[in-house]
Amino acid sequence: MPLSDLSPDELAVFHAAQQQAYAALVAQGLQLDLTRGKPSAAQLDLSNELLSLPGAGRFVDAAGVDCRNYGGTQGLTELREIFAPLLAVPVAQLVAGDNASLSIMHDTLVFSLLKGTASGAPWVQAPVKFLCPVPGYDRHFALCEQFGIEMVPIPLGVDGPDLDQVRALVADDPAVKGIWIVPTYANPTGVVYTEAVAQALVEMPTAADDFRIFWDNAYAVHHLTEVETPAIDVLGLAEQAGHPDRVFLFASTSKITFAGAGISFFASSPANVAWYLAHLSKRTIGPDKVNHLRHAMYLESSDGVRELMRRHRSIIAPKFEQVISILTERLGDYATATWTTPEGGYFVSLDVADGTATRVVALAKAAGIVMTAAGAAFPYGRDPRDRNIRIAPTMPKPADVAAAIEGLATCALLAASEQLLAARDEGGAALRASAPVG
Amino acid sequence: MPLSDLSPDELAVFHAAQQQAYAALVAQGLQLDLTRGKPSAAQLDLSNELLSLPGAGRFVDAAGVDCRNYGGTQGLTELREIFAPLLAVPVAQLVAGDNASLSIMHDTLVFSLLKGTASGAPWVQAPVKFLCPVPGYDRHFALCEQFGIEMVPIPLGVDGPDLDQVRALVADDPAVKGIWIVPTYANPTGVVYTEAVAQALVEMPTAADDFRIFWDNAYAVHHLTEVETPAIDVLGLAEQAGHPDRVFLFASTSKITFAGAGISFFASSPANVAWYLAHLSKRTIGPDKVNHLRHAMYLESSDGVRELMRRHRSIIAPKFEQVISILTERLGDYATATWTTPEGGYFVSLDVADGTATRVVALAKAAGIVMTAAGAAFPYGRDPRDRNIRIAPTMPKPADVAAAIEGLATCALLAASEQLLAARDEGGAALRASAPVG
Repeated sequence: MPLSDLSPDELAVFHAAQQQAYAALVAQGLQLDLTRGKPSAAQLDLSNELLSLPGAGRFVDAAGVDCRNYGGTQGLTELREIFAPLLAVPVAQLVAGDNASLSIMHDTLVFSLLKGTASGAPWVQAPVKFLCPVPGYDRHFALCEQFGIEMVPIPLGVDGPDLDQVRALVADDPAVKGIWIVPTYANPTGVVYTEAVAQALVEMPTAADDFRIFWDNAYAVHHLTEVETPAIDVLGLAEQAGHPDRVFLFASTSKITFAGAGISFFASSPANVAWYLAHLSKRTIGPDKVNHLRHAMYLESSDGVRELMRRHRSIIAPKFEQVISILTERLGDYATATWTTPEGGYFVSLDVADGTATRVVALAKAAGIVMTAAGAAFPYGRDPRDRNIRIAPTMPKPADVAAAIEGLATCALLAASEQLLAARDEGGAALRASAPVG
Repeated sequence: MPLSDLSPDELAVFHAAQQQAYAALVAQGLQLDLTRGKPSAAQLDLSNELLSLPGAGRFVDAAGVDCRNYGGTQGLTELREIFAPLLAVPVAQLVAGDNASLSIMHDTLVFSLLKGTASGAPWVQAPVKFLCPVPGYDRHFALCEQFGIEMVPIPLGVDGPDLDQVRALVADDPAVKGIWIVPTYANPTGVVYTEAVAQALVEMPTAADDFRIFWDNAYAVHHLTEVETPAIDVLGLAEQAGHPDRVFLFASTSKITFAGAGISFFASSPANVAWYLAHLSKRTIGPDKVNHLRHAMYLESSDGVRELMRRHRSIIAPKFEQVISILTERLGDYATATWTTPEGGYFVSLDVADGTATRVVALAKAAGIVMTAAGAAFPYGRDPRDRNIRIAPTMPKPADVAAAIEGLATCALLAASEQLLAARDEGGAALRASAPVG
């Protein structure tokens, strides 16, 4: 029965039961952390072969270059050949970097701010706004905040952001220079953008000539089911739409091989790649090519990556199933919360009762279950409905995931019943206050 | 005999001999490259153990952290413990990064420009100037040029820049925000700064509160003789001088282990390290800790680094001796060129006859000997006397180094004699022109 349908007596009983359950939860003395989308040790173990690669006497790439020395700003060709088909980009337009695609996003922002894009003045000369589909990725938003870029939240639907809002904002306001997009298994909702949405984004008229789509395909190959949705050829679409330079594409192997010791990627139009490499070459004489060689030897081919991702799936899909199953069992009857059932990526997005997310996260923390801060998936940490909680189930052991979600469900129900009681009290008080006197 | 003392006839004979020698040089069809300070394959081979490290099952650092996963922005403690004594900095104030200290220099500039240092407004809000001891490192100057920072050249003496000029400029002009310093075996002159010079730099009054010394100790342990001059405790000196935040210190293992796959370092005051890490943490979730572990296992200790550097010395010192020996033999008698005899580092700085460096480099190129562009060691590539050529002898094989320097000497003598002939012709013409008529 929906929580809101409970009679006052039923609600009081329910609330008391949740208080009791919460006391029992606290008594368990849990110490669980579901804050970040980190791979588990079992996932990292899949790539332990990297620890001994490239191996004695192996340091020359396919082109005969000594990977130990300086140079090669664009990264090893054989590694780019492995990832280009997975990301649906041409090899020549793909750059392989060091261990963090976040760094490439940071640097493209910095270059755009201080030097201007390939087609415009330095952004730092005037106010800059970015559109931010929400809920979204907190580290994207942190980059905007870092550089004083005003963030405009846009509701994210089942296959992309509200296109009417996006179109209107980019058409009217030349200060709108960018939009953050996680096209595949978006963080945290798991939304997969359709080609039609991608098409709309690359072809819409924009007031700013140097408008850029920050297309962060962080989970391009991170499927949780047997359906392995391919990446959209967004660079091709942009070119066909007459806006070849609109898309900055990012990806990495952080959740493919080693989260801290993988490879990052940047792809874009030929003009943008030249622009990026020209600025990058002031910053570095080249990426860690030995790590490129190590990865190319280990992964071998695009199919090698696909096969590795299936092994990841076999480890993490059960954890996601556990999360969904516990949420369904514990919250399904009460119509107080909703959650996503992602087909890939690293997160489940839970919407608890409006106005209770902060309370739920605080309750969980007090019970030893650390969740990402409520509101983290929104610009400036402000969730206007205070309802969204990001669940990152990959890192803990299965038993710990179960314990954490059980606990979280208890917190969600306690907070919801608290709120309902308070609302009815207020409602009652209001009724009494508005009743005719004497 | 000095070239300038030759009689007209002797000079004509000498010039003809150089033309002949140059024709013979061109006929050799050399293909040699002395442009960049890159380690040779034999030097890289010294660290080939890294190719199989950390090895199967080894991924946990001394603190028990899984190096494969995200995190640890400051870098592995055991690696920082190895390098802190070599750089004369406290372990707690040392940050280990990815493969390029140039990137850390770039990023500290970017953070200062866009966010301001720990003690001032964003530099981008007003014109910025940097003092550049010359000759200096072209990539430092390229960073300034990239970000529109005006460079003020300062003559570099035997143990540091002209301190009177430096003191006057920093005291008068609040736009002067920084100075580039390579304190040990400076690129390209090999100058070693004395502690007295370091002291003067950290204690001088500056008009800008947020003045920073970009102290690039790239060659801290790169000795070419048995004298292993220790690094200056410049952070300690700065603190004692009451300017603890004045120094940004940079270093790397690029010329210790693998040039393209090593570790970079940043050190500064506690406040500056906190400032750097705060901004860095927007850009990355952490450095490649597996590479840190790999390096810590391979190098083992500060003494391990010292021992490795002695092995580098045994490979490269003979190449430097060869350069000096050939220059002395070929140019020593003519008083037309001077050169440095570095006790460490990666370069010999050659000053040919004033006004001929561009011609010498062009002649060498036409003979298949590629040198760094004339003027490269000066801001904006402008050597006011057009005389400086940077020689980088580490990369080629000994026989190629010898051939290249022999060829370069021929080009220097040809250009010098050409110039002298032209000057005397002009002088004669001028004499004739000023002679009383009829």
